[in-house]
Amino acid sequence: MQIQKFEAAVIGGGIIGNAIAYYLSAENIQTAVMEANEVGGKTTSAAAGMLGAHSEWEEFKDVYSFVADSHYQYDSLSKQLKETCGIDIELKKGGILNLVFSEEEKRKLEAVMKLPSVQWLSKVEVYKAEKHASQEILGAVYMKDDVHVTPLSACNGFWKGALKNGAQIFEHTMVLEVVQQGTGFLIKTTNNSFYAENVIIACGVWSNKFFSEAGLQHALVPVKGECLSVINDKMPLTKTLFHEKSYIVPRNNNQLVIGATQKWNDWNELPSFGGIQEIMEKAKSLMPEISTMRPHRFWAGLRPQSFDKRPFIGEHPETKGLYFAAGHQRNGILMAPATGMMIRDLLMERSVNKDWVNAFKLDRVEKVAEGKGVLQ
Amino acid sequence: MQIQKFEAAVIGGGIIGNAIAYYLSAENIQTAVMEANEVGGKTTSAAAGMLGAHSEWEEFKDVYSFVADSHYQYDSLSKQLKETCGIDIELKKGGILNLVFSEEEKRKLEAVMKLPSVQWLSKVEVYKAEKHASQEILGAVYMKDDVHVTPLSACNGFWKGALKNGAQIFEHTMVLEVVQQGTGFLIKTTNNSFYAENVIIACGVWSNKFFSEAGLQHALVPVKGECLSVINDKMPLTKTLFHEKSYIVPRNNNQLVIGATQKWNDWNELPSFGGIQEIMEKAKSLMPEISTMRPHRFWAGLRPQSFDKRPFIGEHPETKGLYFAAGHQRNGILMAPATGMMIRDLLMERSVNKDWVNAFKLDRVEKVAEGKGVLQ
Amino acid sequence: MQIQKFEAAVIGGGIIGNAIAYYLSAENIQTAVMEANEVGGKTTSAAAGMLGAHSEWEEFKDVYSFVADSHYQYDSLSKQLKETCGIDIELKKGGILNLVFSEEEKRKLEAVMKLPSVQWLSKVEVYKAEKHASQEILGAVYMKDDVHVTPLSACNGFWKGALKNGAQIFEHTMVLEVVQQGTGFLIKTTNNSFYAENVIIACGVWSNKFFSEAGLQHALVPVKGECLSVINDKMPLTKTLFHEKSYIVPRNNNQLVIGATQKWNDWNELPSFGGIQEIMEKAKSLMPEISTMRPHRFWAGLRPQSFDKRPFIGEHPETKGLYFAAGHQRNGILMAPATGMMIRDLLMERSVNKDWVNAFKLDRVEKVAEGKGVLQ
Amino acid sequence: MQIQKFEAAVIGGGIIGNAIAYYLSAENIQTAVMEANEVGGKTTSAAAGMLGAHSEWEEFKDVYSFVADSHYQYDSLSKQLKETCGIDIELKKGGILNLVFSEEEKRKLEAVMKLPSVQWLSKVEVYKAEKHASQEILGAVYMKDDVHVTPLSACNGFWKGALKNGAQIFEHTMVLEVVQQGTGFLIKTTNNSFYAENVIIACGVWSNKFFSEAGLQHALVPVKGECLSVINDKMPLTKTLFHEKSYIVPRNNNQLVIGATQKWNDWNELPSFGGIQEIMEKAKSLMPEISTMRPHRFWAGLRPQSFDKRPFIGEHPETKGLYFAAGHQRNGILMAPATGMMIRDLLMERSVNKDWVNAFKLDRVEKVAEGKGVLQ
Ligand SMILES: Cc1cc2nc3c(=O)[nH]c(=O)nc-3n(C[C@H](O)[C@H](O)[C@H](O)COP(=O)(O)OP(=O)(O)OC[C@H]3O[C@@H](n4cnc5c(N)ncnc54)[C@H](O)[C@@H]3O)c2cc1C
Ligand SMILES: Cc1cc2nc3c(=O)[nH]c(=O)nc-3n(C[C@H](O)[C@H](O)[C@H](O)COP(=O)(O)OP(=O)(O)OC[C@H]3O[C@@H](n4cnc5c(N)ncnc54)[C@H](O)[C@@H]3O)c2cc1C
Ligand SMILES: Cc1cc2nc3c(=O)[nH]c(=O)nc-3n(C[C@H](O)[C@H](O)[C@H](O)COP(=O)(O)OP(=O)(O)OC[C@H]3O[C@@H](n4cnc5c(N)ncnc54)[C@H](O)[C@@H]3O)c2cc1C
Ligand SMILES: Cc1cc2nc3c(=O)[nH]c(=O)nc-3n(C[C@H](O)[C@H](O)[C@H](O)COP(=O)(O)OP(=O)(O)OC[C@H]3O[C@@H](n4cnc5c(N)ncnc54)[C@H](O)[C@@H]3O)c2cc1C
Repeated sequence: MQIQKFEAAVIGGGIIGNAIAYYLSAENIQTAVMEANEVGGKTTSAAAGMLGAHSEWEEFKDVYSFVADSHYQYDSLSKQLKETCGIDIELKKGGILNLVFSEEEKRKLEAVMKLPSVQWLSKVEVYKAEKHASQEILGAVYMKDDVHVTPLSACNGFWKGALKNGAQIFEHTMVLEVVQQGTGFLIKTTNNSFYAENVIIACGVWSNKFFSEAGLQHALVPVKGECLSVINDKMPLTKTLFHEKSYIVPRNNNQLVIGATQKWNDWNELPSFGGIQEIMEKAKSLMPEISTMRPHRFWAGLRPQSFDKRPFIGEHPETKGLYFAAGHQRNGILMAPATGMMIRDLLMERSVNKDWVNAFKLDRVEKVAEGKGVLQ
Repeated sequence: MQIQKFEAAVIGGGIIGNAIAYYLSAENIQTAVMEANEVGGKTTSAAAGMLGAHSEWEEFKDVYSFVADSHYQYDSLSKQLKETCGIDIELKKGGILNLVFSEEEKRKLEAVMKLPSVQWLSKVEVYKAEKHASQEILGAVYMKDDVHVTPLSACNGFWKGALKNGAQIFEHTMVLEVVQQGTGFLIKTTNNSFYAENVIIACGVWSNKFFSEAGLQHALVPVKGECLSVINDKMPLTKTLFHEKSYIVPRNNNQLVIGATQKWNDWNELPSFGGIQEIMEKAKSLMPEISTMRPHRFWAGLRPQSFDKRPFIGEHPETKGLYFAAGHQRNGILMAPATGMMIRDLLMERSVNKDWVNAFKLDRVEKVAEGKGVLQ
Repeated sequence: MQIQKFEAAVIGGGIIGNAIAYYLSAENIQTAVMEANEVGGKTTSAAAGMLGAHSEWEEFKDVYSFVADSHYQYDSLSKQLKETCGIDIELKKGGILNLVFSEEEKRKLEAVMKLPSVQWLSKVEVYKAEKHASQEILGAVYMKDDVHVTPLSACNGFWKGALKNGAQIFEHTMVLEVVQQGTGFLIKTTNNSFYAENVIIACGVWSNKFFSEAGLQHALVPVKGECLSVINDKMPLTKTLFHEKSYIVPRNNNQLVIGATQKWNDWNELPSFGGIQEIMEKAKSLMPEISTMRPHRFWAGLRPQSFDKRPFIGEHPETKGLYFAAGHQRNGILMAPATGMMIRDLLMERSVNKDWVNAFKLDRVEKVAEGKGVLQ
Repeated sequence: MQIQKFEAAVIGGGIIGNAIAYYLSAENIQTAVMEANEVGGKTTSAAAGMLGAHSEWEEFKDVYSFVADSHYQYDSLSKQLKETCGIDIELKKGGILNLVFSEEEKRKLEAVMKLPSVQWLSKVEVYKAEKHASQEILGAVYMKDDVHVTPLSACNGFWKGALKNGAQIFEHTMVLEVVQQGTGFLIKTTNNSFYAENVIIACGVWSNKFFSEAGLQHALVPVKGECLSVINDKMPLTKTLFHEKSYIVPRNNNQLVIGATQKWNDWNELPSFGGIQEIMEKAKSLMPEISTMRPHRFWAGLRPQSFDKRPFIGEHPETKGLYFAAGHQRNGILMAPATGMMIRDLLMERSVNKDWVNAFKLDRVEKVAEGKGVLQ
C-alpha cells in the first residue's frame, strides 16, 4: 500500500490539535490529524469552556499577551466558523459573579477588582442581578467581560474549518510510534502508516510517551475534573456563579454545568461517586435553588498539567520538524487559538513573541524543588 | 388548601402552549401553564424545525399572511430570547435544496420556482453548492430564504420568556377536567386544582378529550413521524436537502436530522424498526455519503392533524373564555408565534384578521366526504 | 370500525395490571391490558424489587398471609417465566444486612430478631460476611431469607406470560373514560374504544380519576422515591445493606441500586438534585467504599399510597364488574402475584380469604383523623 | 514510589484477559490485569455471545476438542460465578434455528444435520416452534444444544471471580511498553510502572504493537461487526434465528440482538449508517415481524483476526515468560475458558494437548499465499 504523505501531521485531535490543523491548513499547508478515538472526545469534551475565569493571573504575568490574544480570537472565529461551516461554537457573554462569603475572601480579590471591567456588587445588587445566588454572601466580584464557549463545539468548529481548508482527519487512528526518516517522520499507527515532514504532538495528558521517546524529561500529570449538568426548570441563570474553583455555568439552552473537582494524578476518566457528591455540595452553597432542579448527566476529564502549570509549545531542541503542544491544564480551551497560531508561525518560520517562546519552550527545567513544582 | 387563581390557564406545555403563555404574560396577564409531563417533551421535541418548507402552499392560500407573519417573528424572537433569557433558539439560515430527480418532478415545482427567492440550479451548480447531494439528480430548486430552528430550544425560549414575564409553569400536572364555575373555570389536575378566568386548550393531538367534553365534533388524528440523527464526520452540510416529504436538516453542531415518516392514526410514540429503515433508505438516496456516517439517535412524534389539515384556533362558540389552539400538524413550529399572538388578541378583544378567524374557527365543518377529509 | 370485545379489560400496564392479566388469561378469560405509555414504564420500573424488606410487619398483621403467599409465588414464577417466555425475573437470594448503629436501633429490632430466619451478627461477623459494610456499626440484623427481583423484568415476565396465554396488550393507549353499557363497560381511549364485561383499574397513583368517577372517596397520594445506581468495580457486594429506609441492593451484574427518598405528595416523576444528594449521603454512611465507585443512572418513581397504606383490591360495592387494584405503595412488587390471584378469584367467584377482602375492600373508611391517616 | 510486583501480569482486560486472570489466580498465582479503558469495554461488550454457532467446523477440525472443552466449562462457571460473586452470566439455552431458503442452502448444511443434536424441521414444524420466523423459508436446521451468554456479564464474572481469588485489576491503565528486566518484565503504563515474572498479552486486535515489539511477524486485522438491539413488544422469541452470518439472538429480557456485519480492516469502533442498514435488511428477511418492533441501541466491535483465523495462544519462542493470547476473531467468548486454562497450564508447566499447542503457537507461519490467508 502507498503511504500517504503530508507536510504536517498533528498527533491528537482534541481542541489543541484541531486548532493547529485549522491554522496550518489555512496557509495551504497539507495537514493531517491522527486521533486515537473521536475528535474532541477526551479532555476537550469535559471542559466547561470558560475563557479566562480559571487563569490565576499571577501564573501568566509574563505571557498575559498570549492569553489575551487567544481570548480575542474567539470573537471572529465564532462568526467565521458559523458562516463557513455552519458550526456554532456557542460563544456566550453574560459575565461571572465571583461570590464572596467573607471579608477575607474579599481582600484576596482586591487586585482583580482594580481591573476596569471588574466591579464589586453588594449583596443587594447581586440579588438584583441574579436571583439564584446564595443569600449567604457578602457580595460578589462581577467580571463583566467574561465569555465562554461550548468546548466540543469549538473543537468541532476547528475540525470542520480544517476540513474546508483541505486538511484530512483520521479518527480511530492511534499513533504508536513516530520514527525519523529522511528529512521527515514515519508515523506508525494501529491502522496505516503515514509520512510527514513535520509532526506536532498534541495528545494532551497522553503526550508523555512522546516526550520520553523524544528524550525530553517532562511528565504531564492528569488533574482529574468531575462535572455534572442540571436542567434548569426555573428562571434562567444569566451569569456564571463562581467561588474558589467551583462554578455553575449556564449553557445556551436550559442546562447548567457544575464543576469541578481537582484530583491530582488520577488517570480514571470516569466520574466517581465521591467526586460528584463533592461538587453537588459546593453547587448548593453557591445556588441553593439548584436542589429542586433535575440532574442530567455527569462526566469527567483529565487536565494535562506540567511542572509549572504552563503548556509546552515549541520545536524539539534537537530534532527539527518535531513540535509539541500539550499541557494546557485548566486553560486549553482559552489557549487553543493562540497555540494554533504559534505553532503555525514557528513552523512557517515567522517571528514569534520571544516571551512566549521562552515561557513554553520544551527544554525549560523545573526551577523549584520537586513536590513544589507540581501543584494541584 | 387554597386554590391558585389565574387570568389565563394554558393546558399543554408544547411549543403552542408556551408561545401563548409568552405573549399573554407579556401583556401582564396572569398566566399559568399546566403540562402533564415535561415542557416540550412530546411532539414539539420530535420536530425538525423547518419554518415553512413543509407547507403545501395551496393549503394556506387564504391564510398565507398568517404563516408569513409567524415566520417573520422568529428573527426578533431569536435576538430577544437570547438576550433576556440566555436561550438560543438556533435560528439557522442556509436554504433548502429541493432535489429533483425527473422532469416530471421539475414540472410540479414550476409554480414555486416563480417566487423571487427561489431559483433553479442545474446538477453542476448543485454540486458546486453542496458536495453531499446525490449525483442522480437533474438539478434542484433552491429556496434561499429558508430558515430553521431547533424546536425544543424555541419552546424553551418561550417557556423562559414567559417565566420572566411572570407566568407560572407547572410540569407533571395533567389536567383531568375543566369545569365551568362562576365566570371562569375550575381546572382539576392529577395534582392540585386551579381556577382561571380563561382556559386555552393546547394539548396537541391529546386535545380530543377536551373537544368532545366541550361538545365539539372534532377529532385530531396523529400522523406519526419517525426521525434519526446522524453525526457528520465529513465536510459540513450547509443546506437542507429535501425531496418529497423526506429531508436532511443540518443542525448547528455536527448533527444531521433525517425525517420523517407519515403514519396516519398511529398513537405509538416510539419509532419502529420499519419506520427507521424507511427514512434511512430515503436519506441515502438524497445523500449517498451518509452511509459512512454514524447514526446517533432515533425518535418519533405525533403530528396533530385535523380534517382539513388546519389548526383550530379560537374561542368556543358558546362557552366564553374557553379557547382552543391545537391541530398544527406539520407546521406547529412555524405557526407558534402567530398562534400565540392570535390567542392573545382574541382574549384581549383586539382586532384579528377575519380570514384567519374563519380559517381556524372551532365550528367549521367538514365540507368533504369523510374519508376524503382526513388525508395523510 | 368494529369495537373489540373482551371478558376482562385491565386499565394500567404496571406490574399489578400485568400480574392480573397473567392470572386471568391463564384461566382462558379473554383479557386485554390498556397502557397509556409503555408496559412497566412508570412506578414499576423505578422500584428496587425487594420482596418484603420494606414491609413494616405491624401494618400487615392481619393480612400477613397475603404477603407471605405472594412472596412464595415468586419461586415458581421465576422458573415458569424463564421456561415458557425466556424472561429472567432475576430472582436473587443473599439476604439483607440491616445495619445497626446504636443500642437504641438494636432494641427496636428485637422483635424481628426472634424470627427463625433472622440472626444477630456482631461487627466482626458482619465484616467477615461483607467487607463493604461501614465500620461504624454495632452489628447487623441478618435476614437470611430475603429475596429480590428486578421489577421491570418481573413485570415483563407477567406481560409475556399473559401474551402466551392469549391476552392482548395495547401500549400507548390511555383510557379516558369507562362508561357502563349493557352488562359491561365501554372503554374510551385516546386511540380506539373497547368493550369489556369486566374492568379492573390498576393505574397505580393515577387511579384517582377512576375512584372519583366511580363515586369512591379515595385519593392515592404519590410518595416519590428517588434512586441512583452505581457500577461496582470493586469486590462484589453479596448482601443488601439496609438502614432505616435506605438501602444498597446488588443486582445480578455489577450494578448496585441505591434508594430511596420519601417525598410525600410530589407528582414530579423526575429525580431532583436534592433528592439524589440525600441518598448519596446515606449510601456513603452504609458503605464508605462506594465513594470510589462510578455513578451510573438516576431516576424516580411515585409510590401510590392510600390513607392506611394498604392497597384497594376488590369489586366496586355497587357497580358489578368494576374492580380496583391500586395503592400498593412500597410493596407492589412483593404483592403483585397475590393481587393478581385475588382479582382472578373474585372475578371467577372463587372463595377468597375473608381477612384479605376486608383489609383491602374499596368502601373501607378512614378510621383515623385526617392528617394522621395519610402518613409518609 | 515502590513498584508493585506480580507473578503474572495480564495486559488487556477483555474476556480473554479476565479469563486468564481468573484461572491463574485460582491457583494462588499473584496476578494483575492492566486495562487501558474499562474491563470488557471493547470487542467483548460488542459480541452476541453465541457459543459455537459461528464456528465454521472445518476450521477447527484438529482442535475441536479445545472448542468443545471451552463450551463445556460454561455450565459450571455459570453456577459458580453466580454463587461466589453474584454475577449472572446469563447462560441461555433454547437452540438455534438455522433458516434455509433454498435447496442449495439445505445441501450445504447436510453435514451438520448428521450431528445427533441437530435436526431438520420443515416449514410447518418451524412455524410451530417459532411463530416469528419468516414464511419464505423451506425449513430450518435446528441445533438444539446451542447455548449463549451475555458477553459482558461473562467477562464481569471472570473479573469478579479473579478479584475474589486475590487478583488485582487496574482500569484506565494503558501499557506503553514491556521491557525485559532481570528474570521478568518491567511494565510501563500511562499510569504507574509494574514488575512481573510473567506477562500475558491479551489485547485483542490491539495486540499488534506487542507482536512486533516481540519480533513476531503477525498482524491481527480487525473485522468490524455492527449490531442493533430491538425491544420485542410481541410474543417472546425463544430460539436464535440464524442465516449465513446474520442472526437474531433473544436475550433474557425483552431484547433481541441483531448482528452483524463483517468489515475487513476497518478500525472505526463506531457503527455506520450503512452497516446498520445492512443488518436491518437481513433481520427483516429472517423475521418480518421485527418491522413493528422498536429499535433500542446500536454498536460495533472489532474482531481480532489472524491470517488463519485462529488465535495465538502460547509462550514466545525465545523470551521465556512472555505469553500471547489474542486473535480469537468470532469465537472469543466461546474460547475464553479454554484459553484461560491453557495459559494457566503452560505457565504452570502442566501438560497441554499437543494439537492445541501446535494449532495456536506463535511462530506458525502463513502457509497459504498472502491474500488468501486473511479471509473475511
Ligand atoms: C472539568 C474540566 C473543566 C475545564 N474547564 C476549562 C475551562 O473552563 N476553560 C479552559 O480553557 N479549559 C478548561 N479545561 C481544560 C481543557 O479541557 C484542556 O486544557 C484542553 O481540553 C486540552 O486539550 P488537548 O487537545 O490538549 O487535550 P485532549 O482534548 O485530551 O486531546 C488529546 C487527544 O489526543 C488523543 N491521543 C492521545 N494519544 C494519542 C495517540 N497516541 N495517537 C493519536 N491520538 C492520541 C486523545 O484521544 C485526545 O483526543 C477543563 C478541563 C476539565 C477536565
Ligand atoms: C417528525 C416531525 C417533524 C416535524 N417537523 C416540523 C417542522 O419542520 N416544522 C414545523 O413547523 N413543524 C414540524 N412538526 C410539527 C410540530 O412538531 C407540531 O405541529 C407542534 O409541535 C405541535 O405543538 P403542540 O404544542 O400543539 O403539541 P405538543 O408538543 O404535543 O404539546 C402538547 C402538550 O400537551 C400536553 N398535554 C396533553 N394532554 C394534557 C393534559 N390533559 N393536561 C396537561 N397537559 C397535557 C402534552 O404532554 C404535550 O406536552 C413536526 C412534527 C413531527 C412529528
Ligand atoms: C423508589 C421506589 C422503590 C420501591 N421499592 C420497592 C420494593 O423494593 N419492593 C416492592 O415490593 N415495591 C417497591 N416499590 C413500590 C412498587 O414500585 C409499586 O408498589 C408498584 O410498582 C405499583 O405498581 P402499579 O402497577 O400499581 O403501578 P405503575 O407501575 O405505576 O403502573 C400503573 C400504570 O398505569 C398506567 N396508567 C395510568 N393511567 C392510565 C390510564 N388512564 N389509561 C391507561 N393506563 C394508565 C401508567 O402509565 C402505568 O404504567 C418501590 C417504589 C419506588 C418508587
Ligand atoms: C459483532 C460481534 C459479534 C460477536 N459475536 C460473538 C459470538 O457470538 N461468540 C463468540 O464467541 N465471539 C463473538 N465475537 C468475538 C468476540 O467478541 C471476541 O473474540 C472477543 O471479545 C475477544 O476478546 P479479547 O479479550 O481478545 O478482546 P477485547 O475485548 O477487545 O479486549 C482487549 C482489551 O485490551 C485492552 N487493551 C488494548 N491495548 C492495551 C494496552 N496497550 N494496555 C492495556 N490494555 C489494552 C483493550 O482496551 C481491551 O479492553 C463477536 C465479536 C463481534 C464484534
